[in-house]
Amino acid sequence: MKLAILGAGDVGRSVADLAGDYGHDVVALADSTTATVDDDGIDIDGALERKLAGDALGSSDLETVFEADYDVLVEATPTTLGDAQPGFSHTKRALEADRHVVLANKGPVAERYEELRALEAASAGSIRFEATVGGAIPILSTVEDSTPQAVTAVRGVLNGTANFILTRMAAEGLDYEHVLAEAQDLGVAEADPTFDVDGTDAALKFVILANVLADGGFALNDATVDGIQNIPGSALDLAAEDGRTIRLIGEATRDGVRVGPRLVPENGPLAVTGTRNIVQIETRNAGSLHSSGRGAGGPETATAVLSDVGRLPPL
Amino acid sequence: MKLAILGAGDVGRSVADLAGDYGHDVVALADSTTATVDDDGIDIDGALERKLAGDALGSSDLETVFEADYDVLVEATPTTLGDAQPGFSHTKRALEADRHVVLANKGPVAERYEELRALEAASAGSIRFEATVGGAIPILSTVEDSTPQAVTAVRGVLNGTANFILTRMAAEGLDYEHVLAEAQDLGVAEADPTFDVDGTDAALKFVILANVLADGGFALNDATVDGIQNIPGSALDLAAEDGRTIRLIGEATRDGVRVGPRLVPENGPLAVTGTRNIVQIETRNAGSLHSSGRGAGGPETATAVLSDVGRLPPL
Repeated sequence: MKLAILGAGDVGRSVADLAGDYGHDVVALADSTTATVDDDGIDIDGALERKLAGDALGSSDLETVFEADYDVLVEATPTTLGDAQPGFSHTKRALEADRHVVLANKGPVAERYEELRALEAASAGSIRFEATVGGAIPILSTVEDSTPQAVTAVRGVLNGTANFILTRMAAEGLDYEHVLAEAQDLGVAEADPTFDVDGTDAALKFVILANVLADGGFALNDATVDGIQNIPGSALDLAAEDGRTIRLIGEATRDGVRVGPRLVPENGPLAVTGTRNIVQIETRNAGSLHSSGRGAGGPETATAVLSDVGRLPPL
Repeated sequence: MKLAILGAGDVGRSVADLAGDYGHDVVALADSTTATVDDDGIDIDGALERKLAGDALGSSDLETVFEADYDVLVEATPTTLGDAQPGFSHTKRALEADRHVVLANKGPVAERYEELRALEAASAGSIRFEATVGGAIPILSTVEDSTPQAVTAVRGVLNGTANFILTRMAAEGLDYEHVLAEAQDLGVAEADPTFDVDGTDAALKFVILANVLADGGFALNDATVDGIQNIPGSALDLAAEDGRTIRLIGEATRDGVRVGPRLVPENGPLAVTGTRNIVQIETRNAGSLHSSGRGAGGPETATAVLSDVGRLPPL
């Protein structure tokens, strides 16, 4: 398939870098200012070098990307809330041109799900968005293959930054501010870590899951969300005395979404450590499936994008 | 899709029972003696009642099944080794008639993989076999979506009977013979438990995985296999003193297959308990994915079969 990649952050660059390994071509790569476009395939290494050197990707613009000969638009621009722009418009434009869209951007899928599905129904193209939930862990494809009707709930840890912080607080008896600073030094937390530590990032993912289970009906505002910013180190010590620890746990069912810190057994499956993520998928006929792995990262998330590309029907 | 189901054991009956929930029709159901066939859809409840009452499924025979108007042959007859018959012939016949085949029967996939792929290449139909490895846990589809080239190894616990026995031996300090008898009473171990306790069942699954990773080249004879029959209760006590336990662990890489009892950390991911299965899928770009769940059972395995049916292209 020919990929037009919007977004040249970690995910967009990794998709460009790995596309060839999966048998796909990259005909466009764009960041927020410029683009490089070539229907015969862009010079991927050159583009990545220019990006990392701080130079312009190319001399084209977004219009040229949409006029290119592509099969799949990869929407990997930063997640935005509310109207989910410009990601929503990018997706709409590709679907209206009867092209496929694979999203790593959570915004449109969490905030405007029913509109996306309506655009998809009117298009020859399809949308897929494995990369929006749990990075490398195949969560949405598992729900899809089980059929959403057979899945009753999805629960787990879907934010690695918050999980890392809680793991370190428990392991070292350090307080939140201290561990947050450590996480930022390591690149595990961003300079502005708000969405990770206040639960918004996890909530977006569980909202997407609830939309898949219920075929729409949820946006971020519908989720009940509590973060980890107010957990004192003493809470983790107390939990440990009882053989438990604290994790930022989310749950999606057809009835709604909740994210918040929970006490979990110290050695149980939900007490995943470091930046790792885990989901428990509860099914009608097959009990509980647990999947864990790396929930974030350029190459990790790119594998989810490319896995989705592999599941698209030919146009 | 229209399913013709060969095999009316736990798996075959569960596929018949659940097919409607997934939007599929059942046009034939056969056991080793008779069959019930109806191009407009068989009376599933009636057939299941007759089977459970010990009566004949119907008045048709295997020939009539192959002459029916079906899209997918579900091969759920008992696993046989070596020439993998009659499962191999059933599969061959359907592929030569340009029909799809979804296997729950490990024999043909473990023992005659390259021949199956050659038949598939010459057919308009495809083969899928998620149900042969790990029951409800989506292992093969995860490897497929990651692309086999990106997967370096698959390791884990894929036999619930052996795992149950080892879990109980460690938990209760009982010896092997005692716990085996308990497992048989519970229906977790069969009257003849040989293939479960000597590692053959696990080895077949890891051979199938090695065949997928390497695109063929392995059969059961190529695997190095040790079972759990000779583990004394004292070995588990000693392991526990070190914070470890024993599990029957298999590993498949492109270079081969090994199955045998291994020491694993007591609270680590491989120390899954009871009849649960777990795999660790090691990937080039996305680290290690862990998936656990119910590795066996009629409905559980049927969900894998029906998940495969959902991924088949139209004929």
